[in-house]
Amino acid sequence: MLSGWHLPVSPYIHLRDDALHISLWLRGADLPEQVFLRCEPDNEEWLLRMKGRQHDGFWRYRAVLPLREGQPSRRYCFKLLWADRQQWFSPQGFSVIPPAQLGQFAIDIPDNGPDWVADQLFYQIFPDRFASSQGDHGVQDGSYFHHAAGCPVVRREWNEPLDDVNASSTFYGGDLAGICEKLPYLQQLGVTALYLNPIFTAPSVHKYDTQDYYQVDPYLGGNEAFLQLREKTRDAGIKLLLDGVFNHTGDSHCWFDRHQQGTGGACHDETSPYRSWFNFSPDGQVLDWKGNSSLPKLNFASEGVVNQIYRDDDSVVRHWLRPPYSIDGWRLDVVHMLGEQSGAKGNLQHLAGIYQAAKQENSQAYILGEHFGDARNWLHAGVEDSAMNYMGFALPVRAFLAGVDVAAHPIKLDAAECAQWMDEYRAGLSHNCQLRLFNQLDSHDTARFITLLNGNKSRMKMALGWLYSWIGVPCLYYGDEIGLDGENDPFCRKTFPWDESRWDHALLGLCRRMITLRHSSMALRRGGCQVLYAAGDSLVFIRAHQHERVLVALQRGLPTRLNLPVSPLLNVETWQREEGESELMQLNSGVSLQLGAESFTVWKGVGKY
Amino acid sequence: MLSGWHLPVSPYIHLRDDALHISLWLRGADLPEQVFLRCEPDNEEWLLRMKGRQHDGFWRYRAVLPLREGQPSRRYCFKLLWADRQQWFSPQGFSVIPPAQLGQFAIDIPDNGPDWVADQLFYQIFPDRFASSQGDHGVQDGSYFHHAAGCPVVRREWNEPLDDVNASSTFYGGDLAGICEKLPYLQQLGVTALYLNPIFTAPSVHKYDTQDYYQVDPYLGGNEAFLQLREKTRDAGIKLLLDGVFNHTGDSHCWFDRHQQGTGGACHDETSPYRSWFNFSPDGQVLDWKGNSSLPKLNFASEGVVNQIYRDDDSVVRHWLRPPYSIDGWRLDVVHMLGEQSGAKGNLQHLAGIYQAAKQENSQAYILGEHFGDARNWLHAGVEDSAMNYMGFALPVRAFLAGVDVAAHPIKLDAAECAQWMDEYRAGLSHNCQLRLFNQLDSHDTARFITLLNGNKSRMKMALGWLYSWIGVPCLYYGDEIGLDGENDPFCRKTFPWDESRWDHALLGLCRRMITLRHSSMALRRGGCQVLYAAGDSLVFIRAHQHERVLVALQRGLPTRLNLPVSPLLNVETWQREEGESELMQLNSGVSLQLGAESFTVWKGVGKY
Repeated sequence: MLSGWHLPVSPYIHLRDDALHISLWLRGADLPEQVFLRCEPDNEEWLLRMKGRQHDGFWRYRAVLPLREGQPSRRYCFKLLWADRQQWFSPQGFSVIPPAQLGQFAIDIPDNGPDWVADQLFYQIFPDRFASSQGDHGVQDGSYFHHAAGCPVVRREWNEPLDDVNASSTFYGGDLAGICEKLPYLQQLGVTALYLNPIFTAPSVHKYDTQDYYQVDPYLGGNEAFLQLREKTRDAGIKLLLDGVFNHTGDSHCWFDRHQQGTGGACHDETSPYRSWFNFSPDGQVLDWKGNSSLPKLNFASEGVVNQIYRDDDSVVRHWLRPPYSIDGWRLDVVHMLGEQSGAKGNLQHLAGIYQAAKQENSQAYILGEHFGDARNWLHAGVEDSAMNYMGFALPVRAFLAGVDVAAHPIKLDAAECAQWMDEYRAGLSHNCQLRLFNQLDSHDTARFITLLNGNKSRMKMALGWLYSWIGVPCLYYGDEIGLDGENDPFCRKTFPWDESRWDHALLGLCRRMITLRHSSMALRRGGCQVLYAAGDSLVFIRAHQHERVLVALQRGLPTRLNLPVSPLLNVETWQREEGESELMQLNSGVSLQLGAESFTVWKGVGKY
Repeated sequence: MLSGWHLPVSPYIHLRDDALHISLWLRGADLPEQVFLRCEPDNEEWLLRMKGRQHDGFWRYRAVLPLREGQPSRRYCFKLLWADRQQWFSPQGFSVIPPAQLGQFAIDIPDNGPDWVADQLFYQIFPDRFASSQGDHGVQDGSYFHHAAGCPVVRREWNEPLDDVNASSTFYGGDLAGICEKLPYLQQLGVTALYLNPIFTAPSVHKYDTQDYYQVDPYLGGNEAFLQLREKTRDAGIKLLLDGVFNHTGDSHCWFDRHQQGTGGACHDETSPYRSWFNFSPDGQVLDWKGNSSLPKLNFASEGVVNQIYRDDDSVVRHWLRPPYSIDGWRLDVVHMLGEQSGAKGNLQHLAGIYQAAKQENSQAYILGEHFGDARNWLHAGVEDSAMNYMGFALPVRAFLAGVDVAAHPIKLDAAECAQWMDEYRAGLSHNCQLRLFNQLDSHDTARFITLLNGNKSRMKMALGWLYSWIGVPCLYYGDEIGLDGENDPFCRKTFPWDESRWDHALLGLCRRMITLRHSSMALRRGGCQVLYAAGDSLVFIRAHQHERVLVALQRGLPTRLNLPVSPLLNVETWQREEGESELMQLNSGVSLQLGAESFTVWKGVGKY
């Protein structure tokens, strides 16, 4: 049987003299007579003959792809020829069917995306619930009337439990100064980048109902507190990502203004200059986002919306990317739904506008789209640098470890199906794009992962370990590292318990060790990713970059022994266990693993070639 | 075991009261507890609960999808839930992994593509070789010097054999008046639409080296002859598609003018207004298309090119779509390579420009892109109505029946792999788009199919039968119907032998019968397409539309018997054999087929439900 190996990283790829030196490794009895590198610099097929040479028990085939011409996204695969048949080799392995255009290996040269993202460890903060400076500016009982909820806002003590009555009007007093105070904690954990849920002025606690895009909510400390956070994070080398909610405004935004008449807002005034900024039916009903009456959908068919959101010199997208705030990027809320009139018409065109505006301000800005579903259409269109990777990471991991899907329906998945899902999803994305995919286990929009697991700590360790070692940039949702639990919104938005006796120190220890390992490992941050074994309850994958290898084994069920066949990826001098307790034995015929029950184990090695 | 059926046509879909009534049929022991229609009208997941009802041994689940909102391309699949697990049902069948966004069923409502295309039978003509009116205007020996070939043009007698010396300078005198004379032949065959290889003035016989986009080559009869052809085809109800070569011009085009100095063309004059219309390196070398020195690549970064090709009121794209010519569409040559500077930069944007310009002239124009590779990126982008379907039809059929691929490399493929290739390729395309895919066995750019088959007539019948019955619009390359053979260019461009004693009347008979059947069958022209059996040498598929069924069986090897299990698609009163000699037996447990060696057989039936 023939085996083949290629990853779009060194040593399989070298950039030298304005050309890509690409190699494919093969091993087996029935080697092909000819091997071609197939590429399509300008969308037309090129077949470049590869030269083979024996090396240490493998055959190594090489070709040189000139980079003078062609699109930045260099797609390629391999064609293997025998006298009477052929095979293709792509990220999906061997196939007699030619790979789809978007099912090939891909690497971006030049890489137009932000280069810094892959090295980060993100941390997502829901500002009212992470930390409170106990300042005077915080919401108090009755500070204002929350129209959408029909009640005055409520202030709770930090340790009071949450309930789901008027949850969006209930405040705990977390603020930006509180985040500043906790930067040492975050730095000790290894966090290098923050993603904040919305902070602009808005009546609800979640602030997806924007009232003023140019003003940080005074109850969070206002623009001044944000400037301080910006300065402190800059000093600490911490990047800062804000939540851009441009699909809709809040109903109290002055452009709309549902709760006051005679102010010129679109809601009550058919002659308002803002009337066309929203969508009204002939009988005057406004179109809300998914039936949320406090979230009127913006109409990007209106020039005014386009100008104000991204085109004008001081548009929202540009404003916060500029000094003195100089945020490092935007997470774009429900980005696939934004568009003209009532739906997503013109969506890609407007996202391209947002993307270009952001890049004009800062070519290294990180534009991250929120998608619960398949984000590949948007990633391929080049209108965002990355997507919240629910579909390629969070959902398969959740399905495999917790047995539920995005709709909380039961799903039964073995390791082979899980690996197929994750690998098929990422197959057509360039290596650079994969490194920037925003991997999370959970968020403010989902139940906490530990809760989905019914508190199973072993599986939580597996999930966290997977998060830090899978390809993509990991983002911790605040509190996951110390075992904070919670069902769906509002219960996944509990306050962070700063009393350390309430922390799960075992989880925190795992997080610290894995984050340290990640920061020290190019293979984990920038390496290729290859599943080596996936069946039943066992999933083994490797991250590889130049000589460095990180081998990761997940065992969902009972203890088991399994063998990984000979592979150049496993051609390592000695393996060093970095995390977990499973056993590895190097054999002439590959590697043998003895995996513990519900275990997560990591080994590091230095490859030979 | 659970079986499921859905096709995006009636009776599985009904459009009623501005809503789609969608049904899924299931049969098996372990029925799901809940079934959902999953759709995404504005890119966000909706799950609509489907109601199940027993019907004639099957379970029929229904839901109603309102059409008031959402994109015209309605994508959907089905989610099946049990107490502890789930399955998805998509064009690819059952899967535990959620289907990709572009791997779902899809139907376009409204359908913005040309509605007439699916009903056609296209016929491709290489004008110099199909028929000659013997007029005075034809090329004679030495009529002009063909610079690119470095020799005067040559005129051959119709029956003289071709050779590959100066092939592009060798003329046989075919012309537009010749086509007019043969319209009765074409009508008798059942042809309803012509696709002509380039006819604009150009020095070569293939005319991909355009010299004047506004002038039909005088040697073909000029604009006047074209007007006559247009009138005669209009009278005969025959549509007319021209070849639009906009990636490059010919080197004798006045914008470039390689062969004369001092004329103001870009080639010799750095100050020419056309200099920026092409791509010159700093040392003055021009960029040719794929190294063909007679085909300088147009640079769409130049406003002048954009205006002249598609934007201006009398741009080329618009000119021929207007009266008096009123062509019915454009076949766009190497459409994926067109773009700015030396490559395909801005490709989709310029194709969108061409597409919009054409639709402004005639909303029912057919914009057909030439792609030898994967065309789905362009089809999904909505910048063309259809693609020359090499990748989804010609290449898998060629691989299965002739054992060679697009590069003339050997390929070994069984029926299961062939069906997987064809089905995966079309899976994400809307039903409407699939009906318009331009299926051919061969063209002026490939060896003749009969030659690929080494003259095997049985397999040629299978191929032709497949062409007329697979989903998509069939196009015959002139002469295939009477067994004209030929290796790659120039030998696939032989003159049509009008001496009927040289015709293969068996092939022609099959073509006439199948074309007649197709014209009489909504199922073949507009129906859904479902592979029912694919293994080894046997491939069986069905076309279905409302009550009508057309069952097609291809047997590549020795005679065999196979059974098709019970299916609502086979739930037919009586089957009538329309073509071929294989036997069908209706059983309680489905249908049994006894297939002859290297056979093609078609049955027609009327379904019950």
